[in-house]
Amino acid sequence: MATMTADQQRAAAKAEYNAFLDVCPSRKLLDRIADKWVTLVIAALGSGPDCTGEPRPMRFSELSRVLAGVSQKMLTQTLRSLERDGLITRTVTPTVPVTVSYELTDLGLSLHGLVRGIKLWAEQHMDDVFAARAAHDALAG
Amino acid sequence: MATMTADQQRAAAKAEYNAFLDVCPSRKLLDRIADKWVTLVIAALGSGPDCTGEPRPMRFSELSRVLAGVSQKMLTQTLRSLERDGLITRTVTPTVPVTVSYELTDLGLSLHGLVRGIKLWAEQHMDDVFAARAAHDALAG
Repeated sequence: MATMTADQQRAAAKAEYNAFLDVCPSRKLLDRIADKWVTLVIAALGSGPDCTGEPRPMRFSELSRVLAGVSQKMLTQTLRSLERDGLITRTVTPTVPVTVSYELTDLGLSLHGLVRGIKLWAEQHMDDVFAARAAHDALAG
Repeated sequence: MATMTADQQRAAAKAEYNAFLDVCPSRKLLDRIADKWVTLVIAALGSGPDCTGEPRPMRFSELSRVLAGVSQKMLTQTLRSLERDGLITRTVTPTVPVTVSYELTDLGLSLHGLVRGIKLWAEQHMDDVFAARAAHDALAG
């Protein structure tokens, strides 16, 4: 289990916002960032398709390829809300045809380590979860 | 931005699972754990209502109180899927009435630091996100 640093503990104690409260705006923000597509977009922009690279801008078509199976509509919605929340920037270059690229802001980078961690956790613990499910279903069945 | 340790990088490079691929089972696991209610349940069981405590068992009614506004149905579904995936245990004590409590497993504890981090990030960056939204809407409007 990761332990909070003294700074993190002070910050938590001082926090004005508390996502445990349904009226707190951070509850909605948590709902937005605790999301599969947000996680995958930020992971891709922050460390590339193999999750070990450096942050770099990516075009819509490249993101669409990396996030296999994402619909055009879902990717567009996810990128728009990340842009509005200040986590990514959208840059339009007037080539023919126009080139649109997306890049993490400093705010987005500050979230990147955490969401990449969630993605890696899922990949690294898949076998543990399979074993738990098999044990659970055997007991139930 | 958090940097991966050499161990994490090796693990990522060796990973059999890749959540970027829609056919990979870790994509579905990511969808399950990248979820507001999962985040809040694991945060509550792992560090209590103020996110600075120690892991301890909690009863359904206590979880329901801490996760303000969660419906009985949603909390029940979330707890069942966490139990099946091996992240929490459910213990029934034959008191009158029966006492049911939930506790993180070692696997759940291994995810706790990350999801608590996501929750704290939302609380600590709420003002930044508000500022970004205001700037974005001013430009758009």
